[in-house]
Amino acid sequence: MVFSAGPNMAPIEARNRGSFCRIQLRDTMKPIYIAAYHQSKFGKLLAMTQEQMIAAAVAGVCGEIGITPRLLDSGSIAAACNFSLHQQGLLAGLLAGVPGMATKPLEAVENACASGGQAVLSGIYKLQAGLGETAIAVGIEKMRDNDGRADGKRVGEALGYFSDPAERDGKTFVFPHIFAEIMQVYSRAWSVSEADLAAIAVQEYANARHNPYAQMKVDLTLEQATTIAGPNRYLIEGLPLKTYDCSQITDGYAAMILATEEGLARLGVDKHDCVEIAGWGQAVDPLQHQLRNVLEPAGAYRAMRGAYAMAGISPFEIQTAEIHDCFTVMGALGTEILGNAEPGKGAAYWVDGNAAPDGICGINTSGGLIAKGHPVGATGIAMIGWAAWQLLHKVPAPLQVKAATHAATFNIGGPVCASVCTVLRGPQ
Amino acid sequence: MVFSAGPNMAPIEARNRGSFCRIQLRDTMKPIYIAAYHQSKFGKLLAMTQEQMIAAAVAGVCGEIGITPRLLDSGSIAAACNFSLHQQGLLAGLLAGVPGMATKPLEAVENACASGGQAVLSGIYKLQAGLGETAIAVGIEKMRDNDGRADGKRVGEALGYFSDPAERDGKTFVFPHIFAEIMQVYSRAWSVSEADLAAIAVQEYANARHNPYAQMKVDLTLEQATTIAGPNRYLIEGLPLKTYDCSQITDGYAAMILATEEGLARLGVDKHDCVEIAGWGQAVDPLQHQLRNVLEPAGAYRAMRGAYAMAGISPFEIQTAEIHDCFTVMGALGTEILGNAEPGKGAAYWVDGNAAPDGICGINTSGGLIAKGHPVGATGIAMIGWAAWQLLHKVPAPLQVKAATHAATFNIGGPVCASVCTVLRGPQ
Repeated sequence: MVFSAGPNMAPIEARNRGSFCRIQLRDTMKPIYIAAYHQSKFGKLLAMTQEQMIAAAVAGVCGEIGITPRLLDSGSIAAACNFSLHQQGLLAGLLAGVPGMATKPLEAVENACASGGQAVLSGIYKLQAGLGETAIAVGIEKMRDNDGRADGKRVGEALGYFSDPAERDGKTFVFPHIFAEIMQVYSRAWSVSEADLAAIAVQEYANARHNPYAQMKVDLTLEQATTIAGPNRYLIEGLPLKTYDCSQITDGYAAMILATEEGLARLGVDKHDCVEIAGWGQAVDPLQHQLRNVLEPAGAYRAMRGAYAMAGISPFEIQTAEIHDCFTVMGALGTEILGNAEPGKGAAYWVDGNAAPDGICGINTSGGLIAKGHPVGATGIAMIGWAAWQLLHKVPAPLQVKAATHAATFNIGGPVCASVCTVLRGPQ
Repeated sequence: MVFSAGPNMAPIEARNRGSFCRIQLRDTMKPIYIAAYHQSKFGKLLAMTQEQMIAAAVAGVCGEIGITPRLLDSGSIAAACNFSLHQQGLLAGLLAGVPGMATKPLEAVENACASGGQAVLSGIYKLQAGLGETAIAVGIEKMRDNDGRADGKRVGEALGYFSDPAERDGKTFVFPHIFAEIMQVYSRAWSVSEADLAAIAVQEYANARHNPYAQMKVDLTLEQATTIAGPNRYLIEGLPLKTYDCSQITDGYAAMILATEEGLARLGVDKHDCVEIAGWGQAVDPLQHQLRNVLEPAGAYRAMRGAYAMAGISPFEIQTAEIHDCFTVMGALGTEILGNAEPGKGAAYWVDGNAAPDGICGINTSGGLIAKGHPVGATGIAMIGWAAWQLLHKVPAPLQVKAATHAATFNIGGPVCASVCTVLRGPQ
């Protein structure tokens, strides 16, 4: 798999292509706005059923702008463990059962942990296709039991379904194992230490303490994150992945209402109060292990660059981002794909404080998947939702990025396989 | 659930709305063509893996027009039992592993047995949204084991995941049981006999004998279909559903390449050799049992009428159709939703020979899900594919509908829950 331009070329390439794509966008595409966003607190939803989560997500997001679901023209829904943990498909049929949602174009989309982002994209596609002027994207995941406990083995098995079948043998916890291998490959290729990667988790735990929606509310020092003691241990013998490098097992839901300008008018929402999804990109790298290059995933770079190009901006022009740190190594790699650091320099960006809320570009100010939590189907929607809150200056003060006008998101599914990227523009 | 206009009003309503929508279509939507279609023989694919089915589907459909997959701009993939029977998600990642398919916008869609139709719609949405000029829709289902045997209990459980959780108690085979209840409700409401519904199966088995892609190659007389003997038995005590009322447990794959006019030019396919997807509609009725009206599913009617309206034609103007006869009662109900018969008169349409290949409108000339087979994820694509072959006059002579210029398809998921409808226009 050859990738012709180095990742460090991204800004220039995006800038060059930007003007062209921006013209195309203006000519053929309608601007798409986030009319409303809503999410549950991430963590434990106890006895709440998937059906109840869907209903609460729709009611919650409609409540944010005081509308009835009848005003929504279409919908997309995302979940990842609905079959494996809950023996339930056809979630669109449960969404249709929410009062006001029947007889609309609804469907479920699945791209593993990028399913939530995919649901947002599907809404955008339908709006661009002329299927109405408003669309809802709903993401849910119920990973814990009714007492709030996580059955790690069962969840591990369910998430393992998103891996290459040829890559599962000998792995009890498939994804932690695969990412432990990626962490090793990455660390060796770029001489990045375990402590460098742990710095990402430390920053994210610190951020999450201020986020009322976050799952993890504990202090984490670099010493704790790098010392084998208490809950912190190596998950797979001989590989560098430790407890604090991992995201959480989380219950949660999120929903977003997307609208064209006509849609906003119908919903009674002022365009000048809204964040625009100014660019988006989606691409899938092969799931098959031997066909992937995890250090430079071509599809991920393509999706991210496409989003910048469509928005007509370069990575230097975003002040905040939410990236898919399912494991700390993805926080580092994601920072590179975002265009903020050259290959191998992603962890250093965090170590140097550049990713902090008051840094060059505040990344995962929400706490990220590692500390905010990772309710798989909701994650991709929540990344866009939090980034939008940043641009609306609605996040708690210690996390608020000053003068943020543009943001980016990077949501992945599988072992750097499906990538959904967006570039957001704040109210003009 | 109130449906304001009776189903028998459909033609007039569609005609009235047609002119308006047709204008809208011309103004804002691009015509979408079927550049190529390919499917496996339905039945048993033995030791073929899902990954191999995906690769064969892509190679097969590209081979139909002699192109490389590199010319495809996006893709959607459908399956229904991939998690439950094969512990595999992220099928888009496997699709990306087919040579020429990496780093493209790909995703899986799921709407139970309408997933295949949904994959075609997703391709259309992406083309309308400006995401390239060509799109592939792939549908697969591996329901039998490597020796070709079907484990009815396991498949029944897997398909049961697409039902309302509140409707499963006391049902061993959830979907046959639910449709046996629907059959009873339908028969009592409209005084339709078991023999009337059996006539649908008899016609379909007769059709399938001439279809080289069909699973069932046996003679079936009305007497056999109505007599309890041999394989024919009541599946649930006290309910009218018998063996020959049911569709098959089937392995199969299908793929379709969709293209705009520019896309056709790039693929080297002449527009005048192509079928146009002139209209489409999608809508979801609530999965929750108490919210559905199975005799008059509002979403199904809405989707079908929307497709006619977009194409600017009435149901009287189609000469052939493929409808979702997962059970014979759906063959009857589908004929009504199609607009060919008034409510309660769907079975009579078949009894009178109107649905035969040489009847008023040849319906399920392929043999339908009952005799061609029902590889769930592939079914919706195959319905459109066969209907397109009819319009290209490419089906075997005994099944060919004469002078067919327009066709319709009606693909459902769940107990009349998710509906995907299309109206096709033959080469002009």
